[in-house]
Amino acid sequence: MDFATLIGFIAGVAIFLWAMISGSGGDVGGFWDTPSFVMVIGGGIATTLLSVKMNRFLGLMGICKNALFNKNRPADEMIKQFVKLADISRREGVLALQNQVAGIENKFVANALQLVIDGTDPEIVKQTMEYELMAIDARHAEGKQVLDLLGKYAPAYGMIGTLIGLVIMLQNMDDPKKIGPGMAVALLTTMYGAVMANMVCLPLADKLNNTHSSEMLNLTIAQAGIAGLQAGENPRMLESKLMVFLSPGARAAGAAGAKAA
Amino acid sequence: MDFATLIGFIAGVAIFLWAMISGSGGDVGGFWDTPSFVMVIGGGIATTLLSVKMNRFLGLMGICKNALFNKNRPADEMIKQFVKLADISRREGVLALQNQVAGIENKFVANALQLVIDGTDPEIVKQTMEYELMAIDARHAEGKQVLDLLGKYAPAYGMIGTLIGLVIMLQNMDDPKKIGPGMAVALLTTMYGAVMANMVCLPLADKLNNTHSSEMLNLTIAQAGIAGLQAGENPRMLESKLMVFLSPGARAAGAAGAKAA
Amino acid sequence: MDFATLIGFIAGVAIFLWAMISGSGGDVGGFWDTPSFVMVIGGGIATTLLSVKMNRFLGLMGICKNALFNKNRPADEMIKQFVKLADISRREGVLALQNQVAGIENKFVANALQLVIDGTDPEIVKQTMEYELMAIDARHAEGKQVLDLLGKYAPAYGMIGTLIGLVIMLQNMDDPKKIGPGMAVALLTTMYGAVMANMVCLPLADKLNNTHSSEMLNLTIAQAGIAGLQAGENPRMLESKLMVFLSPGARAAGAAGAKAA
Amino acid sequence: MDFATLIGFIAGVAIFLWAMISGSGGDVGGFWDTPSFVMVIGGGIATTLLSVKMNRFLGLMGICKNALFNKNRPADEMIKQFVKLADISRREGVLALQNQVAGIENKFVANALQLVIDGTDPEIVKQTMEYELMAIDARHAEGKQVLDLLGKYAPAYGMIGTLIGLVIMLQNMDDPKKIGPGMAVALLTTMYGAVMANMVCLPLADKLNNTHSSEMLNLTIAQAGIAGLQAGENPRMLESKLMVFLSPGARAAGAAGAKAA
Amino acid sequence: MDFATLIGFIAGVAIFLWAMISGSGGDVGGFWDTPSFVMVIGGGIATTLLSVKMNRFLGLMGICKNALFNKNRPADEMIKQFVKLADISRREGVLALQNQVAGIENKFVANALQLVIDGTDPEIVKQTMEYELMAIDARHAEGKQVLDLLGKYAPAYGMIGTLIGLVIMLQNMDDPKKIGPGMAVALLTTMYGAVMANMVCLPLADKLNNTHSSEMLNLTIAQAGIAGLQAGENPRMLESKLMVFLSPGARAAGAAGAKAA
Repeated sequence: MDFATLIGFIAGVAIFLWAMISGSGGDVGGFWDTPSFVMVIGGGIATTLLSVKMNRFLGLMGICKNALFNKNRPADEMIKQFVKLADISRREGVLALQNQVAGIENKFVANALQLVIDGTDPEIVKQTMEYELMAIDARHAEGKQVLDLLGKYAPAYGMIGTLIGLVIMLQNMDDPKKIGPGMAVALLTTMYGAVMANMVCLPLADKLNNTHSSEMLNLTIAQAGIAGLQAGENPRMLESKLMVFLSPGARAAGAAGAKAA
Repeated sequence: MDFATLIGFIAGVAIFLWAMISGSGGDVGGFWDTPSFVMVIGGGIATTLLSVKMNRFLGLMGICKNALFNKNRPADEMIKQFVKLADISRREGVLALQNQVAGIENKFVANALQLVIDGTDPEIVKQTMEYELMAIDARHAEGKQVLDLLGKYAPAYGMIGTLIGLVIMLQNMDDPKKIGPGMAVALLTTMYGAVMANMVCLPLADKLNNTHSSEMLNLTIAQAGIAGLQAGENPRMLESKLMVFLSPGARAAGAAGAKAA
Repeated sequence: MDFATLIGFIAGVAIFLWAMISGSGGDVGGFWDTPSFVMVIGGGIATTLLSVKMNRFLGLMGICKNALFNKNRPADEMIKQFVKLADISRREGVLALQNQVAGIENKFVANALQLVIDGTDPEIVKQTMEYELMAIDARHAEGKQVLDLLGKYAPAYGMIGTLIGLVIMLQNMDDPKKIGPGMAVALLTTMYGAVMANMVCLPLADKLNNTHSSEMLNLTIAQAGIAGLQAGENPRMLESKLMVFLSPGARAAGAAGAKAA
Repeated sequence: MDFATLIGFIAGVAIFLWAMISGSGGDVGGFWDTPSFVMVIGGGIATTLLSVKMNRFLGLMGICKNALFNKNRPADEMIKQFVKLADISRREGVLALQNQVAGIENKFVANALQLVIDGTDPEIVKQTMEYELMAIDARHAEGKQVLDLLGKYAPAYGMIGTLIGLVIMLQNMDDPKKIGPGMAVALLTTMYGAVMANMVCLPLADKLNNTHSSEMLNLTIAQAGIAGLQAGENPRMLESKLMVFLSPGARAAGAAGAKAA
Repeated sequence: MDFATLIGFIAGVAIFLWAMISGSGGDVGGFWDTPSFVMVIGGGIATTLLSVKMNRFLGLMGICKNALFNKNRPADEMIKQFVKLADISRREGVLALQNQVAGIENKFVANALQLVIDGTDPEIVKQTMEYELMAIDARHAEGKQVLDLLGKYAPAYGMIGTLIGLVIMLQNMDDPKKIGPGMAVALLTTMYGAVMANMVCLPLADKLNNTHSSEMLNLTIAQAGIAGLQAGENPRMLESKLMVFLSPGARAAGAAGAKAA
């Protein structure tokens, strides 16, 4: 789990609440208007529901959990795993890798490794991995899209709500004293939409995007590793080839760790 | 049919109406102005008509129906179909597939399968499928574009309408009592444009885009399946190759289903 | 010619005029301000002139005519033409196609066909067609760009004009009665810019883009057709290969037409 | 030199000045505020300087000169040149081209031609031309970027300046008579930024982009021409191959010119 | 180090401060509001933290240092280095390059050169360099993204802060004298956000992007150089091949320098 996500989320909300409390002298009641809240959140959810399939929308909680509790392994673990597999394959033959498959957490790697053990043609292994990458890419995009849509339609309903509020206010300008409070309420939907988008949906979508990029880099390493395994490459050769995916700093640390191991 | 789309659409409109009713104390007459409505909807339609061919515009209803009643098959059905076809091809020869062609709902698959049965060169089958994918992609983009254009020009007319209203109001500021209502009417076109775009056109365009992506993934599976069929791949091999398009969860379910079948 | 474009254009302008007339009670004089009009249209044209070569700008009328009177042939005509050519080539030999070249309206097809008749190497024919497609693509982009630039700089001058008007108005606020009319005039440039962009330039650019996409699809069919001709493909084979570019509906209609012919 | 650029620039500025003069009744002093001007121009330049290397920024004048005095040759000259070179190469051998190299103004063509004369392997000539195209592309992008950045940060400083002016004005609202002029001054920075971006930087960047596209098309012709020269293609063949880069109209004119020559 | 970056940054801040001082008559206290500052900076940082991994955020200082003190070597040094290496390789054999590896500062070049010396297959060297480029590209994008996110969420919090301030002000309009100062404070968060984004984050991100582009061009030269070295190309040939990456001006200077050396 990455604490930065949680800390960032809590700190963002805390700063927002503190700004409202300190600005209004503690009288935060004026920032709450139930119809405005229902309009923005409900409207944003309804329109997102219009755009995506039901089961994808219901996966939103899982998506947020993924964004908050990212189990993505660092790239150097992936490299170490392949060096170990290449060592075993070299010493005991490719069939000895069968015992390792069950222990591999990453489904993509386990699946491709099984194909290698089954003696599948390298070209087919490569094609299969590419198909799986394409499908993973599509699934990740689907997950992120729910947040993108919420972050797009919640502010849209916020703007529509503000227009409704302004029209009502402008049609009832007899009592100048009501203008201020009327406009304040009208602005609340815009504020709720901006908060929903910029403090929740878009940052979580950015987070998912980052997690996705890291995982894609990991799977590119896995592709290179599987190809090396199948070509029977020397474990040291394979390691130095995969090491280029790490930053020079991480490379030195990884090399040190490999020696220690 | 996907109920989420309909539920989302109805809920979005209901929330919008409720916000107007609750905000104005039931007096929603102030939100209706026929010239403003004609300006935004008529102008948006006219400009969309300017940009697309007539027959494409007339297909708008069909497009919306497609968006609302999506008949896209889940990916695992496509995979099961190819496993079944590979089974038949293996046991009874490729010509036995002729009996299956008529029962295949997806025109793309039926067309490509016919080519395989006719003994067409694999390279030509592949090229033909790519051409068809290109044409399908272009047709889907055309359909989505009508909604995109409506979602772009309705708010543009909304903005122009508001400018017209503001100019009229500003030129007749002798009676301060008329300023409020005049500006309220001026804002209505902006509101209509925002509603048209954000509650109808853009979500439907997003929906079409999602349906398109799912179908494209399905057709990629079909391409891989046709190639496998033509290469005379083992049905079990083909299945495990196509299974990588599913999420690990769906894969397990699919495997269970396949065993049960 | 496609009437939708003309109808859309006229309807859009009519709705706009009607909104001004009905809103102002017939007193539309307040919507006209010559300096504002010169500023937006003149400034937009001047800046577009800055950005493109003179001869391209002078081609603007031709571009608009193209957008309004689109002579693009439907894809099924292109397919029929190639089936006919393949028939002739099969029966009478490739040299017999020489009589057909003059009758082919599409320069791209005529040019490529001449190369085939001259016995040019297929690889060179393919390369030449790709070069020509690249050049056509560039010319179309140039045509569309003039409209894009006008649609970008007319609103920019509109905004600058409004700022000029606001500064003048704000510096002369002694007489409150002049504030309204002053601001009304200031808003006119913004309105002119929005009208110029959203009712004329951007829809015409969208239209050109659609025409371009249709033509590009047609030329892709032509590329496939020329390749088939040169490979001496069976006319029926070629037809079924090119038919995939049509929608299933158009395909059935085309097949019926072919049988009738 | 392309006069349209200069005419467009002068006309744009003239229209802008005329709008200010006619709008204010000749009293244009109110449109000038030295601190506002320094803020927008100075701030825009400073931030652009932050983003690019010093020597690239200092090249700005040269870039603007390039944009205004475009020496790009028309595509048909490039084609004629290659037909002439192919003629010489055919009649007198490839070594006879050595006398031509010095007379070729375009460095890209001269460089590639020298490689051909030196008998360099065609694959290496092709690769070298691709590397040079990549480098030319990168240099052009760098030149355009300085204008893009100025066109992005000048309006940003304009907005910040307006915010500063608004804050000052709002904190000193005791004398209502000062509100108007205060706000007028506040708006000037926004106006300066919009003028800087939309009348100078962005149009010049668009112009550079167009020049770049034309030159890239020319260099693509050169690539095709060099490949044809090296393959010893017949000059007439090469001409008809390169002619596809021209529009049908220019092609006819070019053919007529070639016959006349 | 590139002084332009530092000069640009200091000049931008100085112009901004001067505009506030000269505008307010030296009374700049009104531009400072601690809660507003905490809201924008704290909120921007918190939301960025939500979106990226902790260790990447902590690298922000290093990223800014990189942006300000860019150690990127000019392209002609890279070319000279490869000419020198090719000279040594030609005269003393490829193994003699081993003494050079330690002296090469650029890790990418040193790593690839080691592979060449080890006699690795050219295809594998090429693949390894591509993997490393992909990883470098991803790392650079990660660095830039922290600044992009700060430049996106700081203004978002600025807008939310202004909405909070407006709501408070509108709810307390009893005393008209408080309206001005209330709105002034409300605008401060928008101003802080705009300053944070346009004077700090986005220009630094642009700078990083430029540094990245230069380095990528350098590494493309290195790829071409390594390939030439491994193919045992003549040093003069290699030089003329790599020279195409330089502008014609730099090429002449480089050639002169090479002769002098």
